[in-house]
Amino acid sequence: MKTLVVHAHPEPKSLNSSLKDLTVSTLESAGHEVQVSDLYAMNWKAVLDAADYGLDASQRLKVALDSGRAFESGALTADVLAEQEKLLWADTIIFHFPLWWYTMPAILKGWVDRVFTYRFAYGVGEHNETKYGERYGEGTLAGKRAMLSVTTGGPESQYDARGINGPIDDLLFPIQHGILYYPGIEVLPPFVLYSADRMTDEEYQDVAKAWEQRLLTMGSTEPIAFRRQNFGDYEIPSLRLKEGLEPAGRTGFGLHVRS
Amino acid sequence: MKTLVVHAHPEPKSLNSSLKDLTVSTLESAGHEVQVSDLYAMNWKAVLDAADYGLDASQRLKVALDSGRAFESGALTADVLAEQEKLLWADTIIFHFPLWWYTMPAILKGWVDRVFTYRFAYGVGEHNETKYGERYGEGTLAGKRAMLSVTTGGPESQYDARGINGPIDDLLFPIQHGILYYPGIEVLPPFVLYSADRMTDEEYQDVAKAWEQRLLTMGSTEPIAFRRQNFGDYEIPSLRLKEGLEPAGRTGFGLHVRS
Repeated sequence: MKTLVVHAHPEPKSLNSSLKDLTVSTLESAGHEVQVSDLYAMNWKAVLDAADYGLDASQRLKVALDSGRAFESGALTADVLAEQEKLLWADTIIFHFPLWWYTMPAILKGWVDRVFTYRFAYGVGEHNETKYGERYGEGTLAGKRAMLSVTTGGPESQYDARGINGPIDDLLFPIQHGILYYPGIEVLPPFVLYSADRMTDEEYQDVAKAWEQRLLTMGSTEPIAFRRQNFGDYEIPSLRLKEGLEPAGRTGFGLHVRS
Repeated sequence: MKTLVVHAHPEPKSLNSSLKDLTVSTLESAGHEVQVSDLYAMNWKAVLDAADYGLDASQRLKVALDSGRAFESGALTADVLAEQEKLLWADTIIFHFPLWWYTMPAILKGWVDRVFTYRFAYGVGEHNETKYGERYGEGTLAGKRAMLSVTTGGPESQYDARGINGPIDDLLFPIQHGILYYPGIEVLPPFVLYSADRMTDEEYQDVAKAWEQRLLTMGSTEPIAFRRQNFGDYEIPSLRLKEGLEPAGRTGFGLHVRS
């Protein structure tokens, strides 16, 4: 296994950072190759701007067009190119981050904004009567697998089916489906630690064991059954889910996971 | 009306930036006071780190505790303090941003991560048998109203109830409910422009008119009917929605909006 670990926490002694260290040691001990993108340690530039594509102040920035042009001409900045190369090298990608305001920290969002360029992560493939580009199950990163390792401050009950924050699967859907599955990555069920600020050292031992197990069984873990775009489930080009595919009355993000 | 406009687009000639300019001119012409936080123009620091709270390298950063301590002792950085003051000054907050990977650009997420500190936006209020802090309808920013003005690259059909990206209301829920309603802000229905890259100058004239109307009728627009936390709809302390409050089988984020 070739694993890219993408880590986004400012404190090296945090729970997230401990789990990231555990990921590296566990996978290396098992004979796998590992590369780490520790975004805080790398001082990752979070903010996408015209300088990313070599534009000067007189030129109007169009993010999709300009990022695609820079990608195709090899003119992306070295930091972004290095991350795209790591993604192409890896067969497995693991993300470690705390849920801040119900999504990823800005530094990780900025990694997505800058690395997932047009022609690399979107704007890939032909459009015709049976195909609307290569995305949602196809694309540049098809065949790879990813898994999120996430911590929350709040307790689990607030993230369950009737919990006030909304179900964790729905909160993670824009990341797991909208960011990762979009360019073709299969996504394994997430590893979520609730009430992370209140965890004792003893509880951490159990958590560490559970996480090691998740890592060592990744090869036999079933990915989330997101529906593929171009294989009959969606009308083209509206990309609405065809009628009859889900029980009447079912709504929301869950429609896009096969029951 | 005192309006804070928070703007997050790198290109001053973009559709988002044109709408932001229109917001300022429309509200000022109608006699309202306006302040603008143009995050790209301000070179906003997007990445929360230990330096935000004056810690040195030997001290372990705990984001909630340290941001709360800095807030209470007046030790937050000047850029963050200025934004908190603008939020306290405003009765209305308008956000302009493009949807990048189904959520806000990193620079705006970093504004939330750094400005919405503990004791200011979360960690507010008492916990007892009938109250679980002041949040979701109560809190520091209660009584204010916000509205999102958002652009997407994809067409509307892909964001509707059965669209492949997921319903736009669900994609915006973590922002509208999890970030804005959490510290007490009432949220008006969003203004969403689909297929923004394909918009013609003629279409823009209609869009501009529609947006002006939304701005000038904010005072009479009903906010999204998110359920308040401490007024009987949720069990305390689990914060699960009480049984019987929604039709059987209804699931997802929509449970937290009164039907």
